[in-house]
Amino acid sequence: MSEQTTDKRVRAASRRHFLQAGAALASGSAMAGFAGTNALAVSDSNLPPSVPEWMKAPGDPTGSQPYGAPSVHEQGVVRNISKTLPQYVSAASRTPLQELDGIITPNGLFYERHHGGVPTIDPAEHRLMLHGMVDRPLVFTIEDIRRFPSQSRIHFIECSGNPVYTKPYGKTASDLVGLVSCAEWTGVPLKTVLDEAGLQAGARWIVAEGADAAALTRSIPIEKCLDDAMLVYSQNGERLRPQQGYPLRLLLPGFEGNMNVKWLRRLKVTAEPAYSREETAKYTDPMPDGTSREFTFIMEAKSIITRPSGGQKLIARGFHQITGLAWSGHGTIKRVEVSVDGGAGWQAAELQEPVLTRALPRFRLPWHWDGRPAMIQSRAIDETGYIQPTLAELVAVRGLNSFYHNNAIWPWRIDANGEVSNGQA
Amino acid sequence: MSEQTTDKRVRAASRRHFLQAGAALASGSAMAGFAGTNALAVSDSNLPPSVPEWMKAPGDPTGSQPYGAPSVHEQGVVRNISKTLPQYVSAASRTPLQELDGIITPNGLFYERHHGGVPTIDPAEHRLMLHGMVDRPLVFTIEDIRRFPSQSRIHFIECSGNPVYTKPYGKTASDLVGLVSCAEWTGVPLKTVLDEAGLQAGARWIVAEGADAAALTRSIPIEKCLDDAMLVYSQNGERLRPQQGYPLRLLLPGFEGNMNVKWLRRLKVTAEPAYSREETAKYTDPMPDGTSREFTFIMEAKSIITRPSGGQKLIARGFHQITGLAWSGHGTIKRVEVSVDGGAGWQAAELQEPVLTRALPRFRLPWHWDGRPAMIQSRAIDETGYIQPTLAELVAVRGLNSFYHNNAIWPWRIDANGEVSNGQA
Repeated sequence: MSEQTTDKRVRAASRRHFLQAGAALASGSAMAGFAGTNALAVSDSNLPPSVPEWMKAPGDPTGSQPYGAPSVHEQGVVRNISKTLPQYVSAASRTPLQELDGIITPNGLFYERHHGGVPTIDPAEHRLMLHGMVDRPLVFTIEDIRRFPSQSRIHFIECSGNPVYTKPYGKTASDLVGLVSCAEWTGVPLKTVLDEAGLQAGARWIVAEGADAAALTRSIPIEKCLDDAMLVYSQNGERLRPQQGYPLRLLLPGFEGNMNVKWLRRLKVTAEPAYSREETAKYTDPMPDGTSREFTFIMEAKSIITRPSGGQKLIARGFHQITGLAWSGHGTIKRVEVSVDGGAGWQAAELQEPVLTRALPRFRLPWHWDGRPAMIQSRAIDETGYIQPTLAELVAVRGLNSFYHNNAIWPWRIDANGEVSNGQA
Repeated sequence: MSEQTTDKRVRAASRRHFLQAGAALASGSAMAGFAGTNALAVSDSNLPPSVPEWMKAPGDPTGSQPYGAPSVHEQGVVRNISKTLPQYVSAASRTPLQELDGIITPNGLFYERHHGGVPTIDPAEHRLMLHGMVDRPLVFTIEDIRRFPSQSRIHFIECSGNPVYTKPYGKTASDLVGLVSCAEWTGVPLKTVLDEAGLQAGARWIVAEGADAAALTRSIPIEKCLDDAMLVYSQNGERLRPQQGYPLRLLLPGFEGNMNVKWLRRLKVTAEPAYSREETAKYTDPMPDGTSREFTFIMEAKSIITRPSGGQKLIARGFHQITGLAWSGHGTIKRVEVSVDGGAGWQAAELQEPVLTRALPRFRLPWHWDGRPAMIQSRAIDETGYIQPTLAELVAVRGLNSFYHNNAIWPWRIDANGEVSNGQA
């Protein structure tokens, strides 16, 4: 049918129509409103060519990418790498949230946070040792683990410094909260493997150790280990990527990222926590009274508008869909509210079904931008009734000494040109 | 903690324990059954090294892969490319279903089926034209489409020749039914855009054309276009891959793959179908009475066991989890049944939640393999009550002239060595 492309019946829709639709919005017809203001006026310059060049000869053959890659026109959509953080100690890369849609983070863009670099592990040589207060200490190969009954679940993982507490730096959603991603994980419930070993009386913690150069070590309460913790070998269908712990990682849905120990090699059942570096010098929260809050495991409810967001530009007045992500380590997001007037008024956004527990549900809200400066922001409410706080509310409780566990509301400023920037900077 | 790795309390669990657990299964304790028979006996040879080489120095730095890739140890997990099919006419590559877990197919392994190769399209130059029996013919840029209210949904897409009808060739699950994959798609309901253009009285079909060298063209019933059809720009979070229609494709949940037109450039609203090559010479079903069944849009209920499946080997007697995928173009899978005795008896498998409509729900069934030859197979039952047929049942209705739309049950043969092969070959 390509020879019919310059069909005589194609006409540029008149600008009058869109103005009429805009008027319909003003008079309360939401349907005509978003449609009319959203479609752009057609001009001769954007009519399709009769036959574009790429239709005139066969394209790339099938199988030219046995394992595929994004379009050459998407080469800028990559992980956002912190250049100021030292490699092997604090290195991190962030998911480009503002470029993404839906709730699944593709594996190539899942955020990274490493303490000793990414080890290259031959799965045939990797072992998981389970010992300590168990009746039967065990050592598993990866194939041993994969023979146990598996499950798949969609969950987020988030770094506890996302963003760090009192430095509202960053221009984009990725700069601020790009240390969160979401995937479908497949693995074996940790409880299944613990049942095989037999927990002894008095077992209260499990100390998990990674096979990276940092031997990253965290203590997990036994209740979590017997609840929804998993030994994970696959992510979004395929085996884990090296950056995510290949060939085996711990998954603790809703717990801070570093506890989801990657390259998992050892689980030691104990009566007491290990008080490792990552739960003493790091990942604790200094409070105003001079004490430190330890073991802040669960990531509190949070949300972020990803579109429009910092670094983007509204190309025209009229209809825009505000969209973003919300999450809570405590369970299911019950509601996301959006303010388009600097926090004075809030309205409920639509949550994309299915809304999964401890995942990254996407919210959406239709909005008509009148072309004036605006401040937009979102707040998450989870199944416990907890409401995501403002930064001021967080500081009132926690003071200014904290570094981790900042779940404050993050506003975006929109100027009269449509340019979007960090509302706290 | 790595210096403690050779912890004296670690002991090889005794083989006696596993034999006891095996006995427990025989006496009816399923829990001890899968645990005991699944864990392998520990020997000195599989104790973890005190400190493996990869822990002794920092690994790869963060950001060494701005867009990540699988482990070097997973390089064999790639799309399965048909070498016997001519490029640019019948070229296809299949998803390696037997290597994957969960329900999401990673974008790099999503199956391909092209009729004129993969065009390289600059999204800034691409246009979608909507014309024919509409009040306002329109031309959209990709950014125009993205300004409309979007949705995200998880759906499968399947080629109608998956597998071809009367040739039970192929060794693996991928060889047989690897022309099906599942992703989270984000885009705009087609209805929204049609409402903007205004359908005229008598509009019954929409003829969709792709911007590939084949100008692939299919006619879609207007009812589907006004139901769940979408104009899709993202897949699993990121923009579509070129092989999947970058920058825009049609998604018709449950309809045969080629109707989900990729590189979508034109939608023409008509009173009659186009009777294009792809709905006359191809994709029709010759019936025993000499007529051809046209417009077999909806893919019927199907399932496949992916593990254990052809080319794999059961490494030991005892517990194995049978797992696979089920799907139906008619809606939700209500039940999957598995037979481990050549089709004499059937038992219900567990379906992984959430079970999404027109997606690829994963089923799982615990099984104790006694070491004797076996024939295993699955059958899907969808929300309409339809039961996936045997190949003999399909042939009894359809005769032997068909090529497409084979949704027969596919058995796997397991021999006494544990080797799994095609049960129909």
